Amino acid sequence: MCGIFAYLNHLTPKSRREVLEILIQGLQRLEYRGYDSAGVGVDGKDGSIAVFKEKGKVKVLEDAIFSGSNDLDMDEILSTHIGISHTRWATHGVPAPVNAHPQRSDEDQQFICVHNGIITNYKDIKQFLVAKGHRFESETDTEIIAKLTLHIYNDHPNHTFQQIVEMVIQQLEGAFALCFKSKHFPNQCVAARRGSPLLVAIKTKEHLATDHIPIMYSKGSGEPVEKLSLAAIGLSGRGDDTKARKISPTDMRQPPRNVPLIPRSESTAEFLPTGDTQEIEFFLASDASAVIEHTNRVIYLEDDDVAWIRDGMLTIHRLKRASMDESSTREVHTLMMEIQEIMKGSYSSFMQKEIFEQPESVVNTMRGRINFDTETVVLGGIKEFLPEIKRCRRLILIACGTSFHSAIATRQLLEELTELPVMIDLASDFLDRNTPIFRDDVCFFISQSGETADTLMALRYCKTRGALIVGITNTVGSSICRESHCGVHINAGPEIGVASTKAYTSQFISLVMFALVVSEDRLSMRPRRTEIIRGLKQLPELIKEVLKLDSRIEEIAKGLYQNKSMLVMGRGYNYATCLEGALKVKEITYMHSEGILAGELKHGPLALVDPGMPIILICTRDPTFVKCMNALQQVTAREGRPIIICNNGDPEPARFANELLEIPPTVDCLQGILTVIPLQLLSYHVAVMRGCNVDCPRNLAKSVTVE
Amino acid sequence: MCGIFAYLNHLTPKSRREVLEILIQGLQRLEYRGYDSAGVGVDGKDGSIAVFKEKGKVKVLEDAIFSGSNDLDMDEILSTHIGISHTRWATHGVPAPVNAHPQRSDEDQQFICVHNGIITNYKDIKQFLVAKGHRFESETDTEIIAKLTLHIYNDHPNHTFQQIVEMVIQQLEGAFALCFKSKHFPNQCVAARRGSPLLVAIKTKEHLATDHIPIMYSKGSGEPVEKLSLAAIGLSGRGDDTKARKISPTDMRQPPRNVPLIPRSESTAEFLPTGDTQEIEFFLASDASAVIEHTNRVIYLEDDDVAWIRDGMLTIHRLKRASMDESSTREVHTLMMEIQEIMKGSYSSFMQKEIFEQPESVVNTMRGRINFDTETVVLGGIKEFLPEIKRCRRLILIACGTSFHSAIATRQLLEELTELPVMIDLASDFLDRNTPIFRDDVCFFISQSGETADTLMALRYCKTRGALIVGITNTVGSSICRESHCGVHINAGPEIGVASTKAYTSQFISLVMFALVVSEDRLSMRPRRTEIIRGLKQLPELIKEVLKLDSRIEEIAKGLYQNKSMLVMGRGYNYATCLEGALKVKEITYMHSEGILAGELKHGPLALVDPGMPIILICTRDPTFVKCMNALQQVTAREGRPIIICNNGDPEPARFANELLEIPPTVDCLQGILTVIPLQLLSYHVAVMRGCNVDCPRNLAKSVTVE
Repeated sequence: MCGIFAYLNHLTPKSRREVLEILIQGLQRLEYRGYDSAGVGVDGKDGSIAVFKEKGKVKVLEDAIFSGSNDLDMDEILSTHIGISHTRWATHGVPAPVNAHPQRSDEDQQFICVHNGIITNYKDIKQFLVAKGHRFESETDTEIIAKLTLHIYNDHPNHTFQQIVEMVIQQLEGAFALCFKSKHFPNQCVAARRGSPLLVAIKTKEHLATDHIPIMYSKGSGEPVEKLSLAAIGLSGRGDDTKARKISPTDMRQPPRNVPLIPRSESTAEFLPTGDTQEIEFFLASDASAVIEHTNRVIYLEDDDVAWIRDGMLTIHRLKRASMDESSTREVHTLMMEIQEIMKGSYSSFMQKEIFEQPESVVNTMRGRINFDTETVVLGGIKEFLPEIKRCRRLILIACGTSFHSAIATRQLLEELTELPVMIDLASDFLDRNTPIFRDDVCFFISQSGETADTLMALRYCKTRGALIVGITNTVGSSICRESHCGVHINAGPEIGVASTKAYTSQFISLVMFALVVSEDRLSMRPRRTEIIRGLKQLPELIKEVLKLDSRIEEIAKGLYQNKSMLVMGRGYNYATCLEGALKVKEITYMHSEGILAGELKHGPLALVDPGMPIILICTRDPTFVKCMNALQQVTAREGRPIIICNNGDPEPARFANELLEIPPTVDCLQGILTVIPLQLLSYHVAVMRGCNVDCPRNLAKSVTVE
Repeated sequence: MCGIFAYLNHLTPKSRREVLEILIQGLQRLEYRGYDSAGVGVDGKDGSIAVFKEKGKVKVLEDAIFSGSNDLDMDEILSTHIGISHTRWATHGVPAPVNAHPQRSDEDQQFICVHNGIITNYKDIKQFLVAKGHRFESETDTEIIAKLTLHIYNDHPNHTFQQIVEMVIQQLEGAFALCFKSKHFPNQCVAARRGSPLLVAIKTKEHLATDHIPIMYSKGSGEPVEKLSLAAIGLSGRGDDTKARKISPTDMRQPPRNVPLIPRSESTAEFLPTGDTQEIEFFLASDASAVIEHTNRVIYLEDDDVAWIRDGMLTIHRLKRASMDESSTREVHTLMMEIQEIMKGSYSSFMQKEIFEQPESVVNTMRGRINFDTETVVLGGIKEFLPEIKRCRRLILIACGTSFHSAIATRQLLEELTELPVMIDLASDFLDRNTPIFRDDVCFFISQSGETADTLMALRYCKTRGALIVGITNTVGSSICRESHCGVHINAGPEIGVASTKAYTSQFISLVMFALVVSEDRLSMRPRRTEIIRGLKQLPELIKEVLKLDSRIEEIAKGLYQNKSMLVMGRGYNYATCLEGALKVKEITYMHSEGILAGELKHGPLALVDPGMPIILICTRDPTFVKCMNALQQVTAREGRPIIICNNGDPEPARFANELLEIPPTVDCLQGILTVIPLQLLSYHVAVMRGCNVDCPRNLAKSVTVE
């Protein structure tokens, strides 16, 4: 997750300083989407492009730009100008100026672009471009976009900026929102999206001529399609859901129809013949929070839309119309929200937002790693260490808090697929114990921030003892990332809420993918692996289904929020869900909740059960189902009145339920991803009802960088 | 722990049936001390001794005796008769008739005896007796006593019964309470004790002539002492705390002075010349609960007392008077208690009694295993498997509930001394996960009852996979005992309270002893081992000191018992104490208490901290002290008002304490034995104040024999 912001002023003179201030302010609104590095690209001297990039938060960039250490004339008035900017949350390459955006096509900066998303076939394209003589400087996937743009421009010097970008994005697999700027097309901006969000906002003193922007199609439908010359070097479609398309130069050369956005007079009926004499400003942004202080009129781009702005005109292009049902226009919405509301979308807190982001965040975690067509998994970050990992004596998963729960959640699958002993340890206890570690151990360190002090110290302890260190973090360039031998970046995007939600499910999936990768050559495990990969594919849809329980859960929260205590029970694959669900409740509601292994009930906790004690029991159809039903009966026999989380339409647990939350079934080892979500939602609603600050619970910080 | 009961009726005619009924009833009162098998010995036909022994509770024995399947005349009137009986809690040999008591000297049953305690040098004596031609039939340590008695009788045919027993007990090391019956000394009974409890109760219609029984000394002090002929076969004193003594035959042949207990008339001043014409009944029992329904006049024997009853007279003998401070009489006490009171001693519940038994139970766990003079440890039960254990890949400790906490408590020491990876697992979770187990794994199964269903199933799971199985139980002959390859019996004695207390500390010590044994040949670890063995030696005294906090803890409980929740925090060696302490509170007070690793505070639980949340924090002087102080400061910074358990006179934690419980320091890895006791006491007092049934908490059973 990153933030994109671009600003185009047409016939609305601004000093360069003002342009930069607008860009910086836009980035700051988007900082919740990423804050490890930032950059801007504006017009420089003599038709060149000036780029500023800094590691750190947007403030660092701002200070660098306005420190006076560059030779740009800040007071020069730019009547018409396009500036693009970006705040980054690293996925490829550590936070560093060279990896920050804009990325450039060449040293001359003929094309620059900013990108939010992950390009999964970037290595293939890079290989192609390297063969063609392009020289790369960053570790990012984005750089190939800038260089490919130049490459296509060189091959097609007569194409419009829009046509070039349209050809570029046809080569890209993965997810992106993009904004381009070029010295060859001054004062023009092209933007495109697929998978990542992007909107265009319009500011003008006039009314808009229309609130429905027509879409222009480059070509008709039904033609056979083929990839660019990339195919010539052995590349083929990697099975992405975007079909490769052949570009017809004939179609390309037809200039797109332009629709002036602004009526030429006060009367909307009357149009002036040219569109380039009216004052207008355009903003492109990842979300509306960045633009709302300038204008409330926005157009949300859709997947594969290409937006082209030049001469004060916005046109939206698509390659072809897929069906007649598809809308042929993009509506101009008028937003009636405050900035804070927009930043969190329709959500009252980042935590709630992040819970609802999970259908997307889990996709981002799997993107470019799981090929659902070939049912194969590749984790680039550990690939070269796989032989060493497969030879090891044991796996040790070390973490704190929620990250530790992701280790518990996946331990059984790791044991099953790797056939290795798998130990799990809380980092602080691991250190307290001076646990023996050997050279043939493989140690995992799981941390959202990658900076958790205890986890990092445990990493160093193991590293000095010669173990192989695998980092699992959400923060490229973090200490754990840097000090690991290899690792997996969970790609969940920045998590703002102190109580971790989407990072948990992404850690979970990352460890599942690890188990799949390690077992890839075991024939006997193929059916199991296939089952899991298919389960992962369906996960985003199933998460959406679980999220529909929200209002039902809110109702349940009303009956619960005044209680002092709560027990969450389950076993097997759902044990981690109990611990994690109870921790969420603890963290943000300050209610004393505890996760209890249902198998331990009779060894003590059953004494707590009475009609007044709120109990949540997870009982899904997996190998422990019968045992969970036993626990359920023990609880109801002691007059406990449990809230039961079970699979859709399962009649058995339903008979005992005081309240029922039905979730769709999936593969046993993935069920925990679905069962934890109702508990995330429950903790959220209870916290709201108790008047707690959901995003900043008392006494806790997001990243625990002290022991 | 076993129960001893003997009944001698002098000139008070009883049918054989009545005698047996009195014996059975006495045993039933003592069943809380053991109930795995039971036996009685009474006079049979023609001067022989009849013995009945059955496996199981006393009821089984009762049914067998009165089933009519024996040829004894139940209605024969016995004017004067001695019967002895026993209910057993196995320490050596599985529960079975052959291992039940009375044990016999030979097939002719010339001498029989019942025994409570452990004879630690029984193997040496057995070897001696085998060499002398005695043939053994049981696996018990007790059998050597019966056979040694016959051996000495054969060598000294003119000795009195009392003299023979006095010679026997000089050969014994360990702990014992003993009652003897012999066909050579009809209607006589000799009893002796060292370490295990024993009392004599007297029932007569007359007043007693005196309420102070004088002690008779066999010899003067100061003579050099030497062991019996056992020394001739290479035996030497094993360093027991009893000094070996030389028996002087000259002294022995002096008949002891007899003091008639009963005045010859109503006037206490007037004595009849002979003591054998008065009606009197004697009872010998492990505690007063077995006799109180017959009489309230009892004499508590002291260590090394030998009581001899014949001709209606009781005499008490000691070898010599150690000092002039030593009392030269034994007082006859008049008990004013109800049966229930006596069974629990001065305690209101078995749990409280068992908490206060810990200074003795930990000694029993170590008895015969740790030689504090040579600072060596021998665990007979695993000796022959040691080479295999030392070669293993890893240790896995599997248990449920409190037993699992003993695994957590000792994990670090096991890791340190064995230098092996040590995994711990809850049995139910271990099974749910189908955890990979290998032939070179050593798996420990810890269970007080030895019948815990999940633990037993996990044992079988590991056994079929070829792992070495080590059982750690309190119940010889239990399923876990039988199905293990080897093991350690914790010798804590039966635990009646559902909430485990003394079994926990004994499990803890058993695992510590295991760690000491495995590391015995590592020179580098010698200082550490010595430190720990010395720590273990002091433990009973230190436990007594901790138990003195009882009234202080009761005061603290008054401030706590109305709360709904409680947190118990600590880390390092005390982490297990937190979990175990919290479990005790959960089990018997139904208050929602949770043990929290102090290192995880900042990862969630700190949100629960406010002035209203009761918090107990353990902060003793060990390597995690500084980190615990950090946690303490975090808690007080959030206005938490902790009860702190720290070492005696430690000023640092005291500054932050709302309430302070100071315990003596010991070796870091043993500190958890001392820190858990205040929490056991606290849970007890809170439960009493909340009106809960301490021994039988709702919803829980002592031994969980279902999954």
